[in-house]
Amino acid sequence: MRIGFVQFGPVFGEKQINFISVETLLEGCKADLIVLPELFATGYAFQSKEEAASHSEVPGEETSLFLKHIAGICNATIVAGFIERENTDLYNSAMMVDTSGIIGIYRKLPLFTKENLWFSPGNRVPRVFKVKGVKVGIMICFDWIFPETCRTLALGGAQIVAHPSNLVLPWAQQAMITRCLENRVFAVTANRIGREQRGEDDFTFTGQSQVTGVRGEVLTLADDDTACVLMAGIDPEQATDKSVNQYNNLFADRRNNFYIL
Amino acid sequence: MRIGFVQFGPVFGEKQINFISVETLLEGCKADLIVLPELFATGYAFQSKEEAASHSEVPGEETSLFLKHIAGICNATIVAGFIERENTDLYNSAMMVDTSGIIGIYRKLPLFTKENLWFSPGNRVPRVFKVKGVKVGIMICFDWIFPETCRTLALGGAQIVAHPSNLVLPWAQQAMITRCLENRVFAVTANRIGREQRGEDDFTFTGQSQVTGVRGEVLTLADDDTACVLMAGIDPEQATDKSVNQYNNLFADRRNNFYIL
Repeated sequence: MRIGFVQFGPVFGEKQINFISVETLLEGCKADLIVLPELFATGYAFQSKEEAASHSEVPGEETSLFLKHIAGICNATIVAGFIERENTDLYNSAMMVDTSGIIGIYRKLPLFTKENLWFSPGNRVPRVFKVKGVKVGIMICFDWIFPETCRTLALGGAQIVAHPSNLVLPWAQQAMITRCLENRVFAVTANRIGREQRGEDDFTFTGQSQVTGVRGEVLTLADDDTACVLMAGIDPEQATDKSVNQYNNLFADRRNNFYIL
Repeated sequence: MRIGFVQFGPVFGEKQINFISVETLLEGCKADLIVLPELFATGYAFQSKEEAASHSEVPGEETSLFLKHIAGICNATIVAGFIERENTDLYNSAMMVDTSGIIGIYRKLPLFTKENLWFSPGNRVPRVFKVKGVKVGIMICFDWIFPETCRTLALGGAQIVAHPSNLVLPWAQQAMITRCLENRVFAVTANRIGREQRGEDDFTFTGQSQVTGVRGEVLTLADDDTACVLMAGIDPEQATDKSVNQYNNLFADRRNNFYIL
């Protein structure tokens, strides 16, 4: 199975330009699962809820149509971040799309910094969706620091965790090694690059998008400032059996009666 | 506050020799918290429950007396592994000892490989104990792969996690970086070195004992085959405030209603 990411620097507020960037980068790419960054079409540094709302979509609108289009070109399932609108609420969401349309949506549970001012926190349990028979969960960016999200997905059967990101802190990539080891899952962290200066905000995104293997191996790693598409070939069956040896199992050995969480 | 570890290669079954090794290594060392490896006095590769039982102790016997002795010499609190016997059950335990005697005991929750054949799994919630006013929790070796143990200790107030180990897998040291980051705690991983070949077993222990800081910094790191004592100076207050920024907090931002663990 071929899984990987698009790393690039979205132009703030310019969906059509960002769609063209992604489509150009993906030219000739055939894959099974492609992960795009968090909020890949809109940029990140909103200054008000109104501004974020002006770039939001109800599922089925232009971003999902674009993703459906590239799903067809690449013969792939795509996971990508977008601003989801429901009534007057906005969510920092990621959708999974294939040629049939939207398969599922994850609403980011832990909002980072000023996201709290315009987005509502996710209000659904993270779910797992099937991609060509393989179970794939979604988490977004800051979820990396909470072991609970990836654990929930892995206990729910996820073999691969798609992880659209707009990382500004330096630690997520190494933490994803631990997330994959402790849960025996693959992960695709699709980060963005570039800088956004808007109002008082000045974000430099750290790139280094990464596909991580079930033994914590870094299967492919981007640099911190180059737009690129990178893929890794994996055997998703490696994520199925949670045995460590004949006596130990990553899930069965948890001693839930003695944890206070 | 000075915290650190003794890394050395215990001689199997030779408590008095191992006591002398530890006391010699600690000569002249003054510290606040010193962590010794898992099963530091007995060795690891038992071949039967009877053999493990023959090296077991009820709390208060010779190993605790030795630890009390070195606590006095070093003016420190000591955390160290031992085989705890209660009725006919044996536990892979670690005790915390100061000059007044035993402060607390942790019984290893997830037993590794053949430990399951002679030890009973821990049957108590991991607790936090005060060392000179600083809250210290204990976990043992294989606990590193389960985020739940360190999370339980951190939520219980631990500022420092003492982590006696007999590591044979290569991943714990980097995982402890994530444990410290996700919980904002310090950790002292005290690993052993050397090789034990007994019966069909052949264990090579990986050393690289490590003190890890609250930002995932490796504060001090031993090599993989040298007996040594290494210390780090820390400010335990850095582990008290779990804020990431004005909007985010490592504990408060957990979305427990949406995790299925």
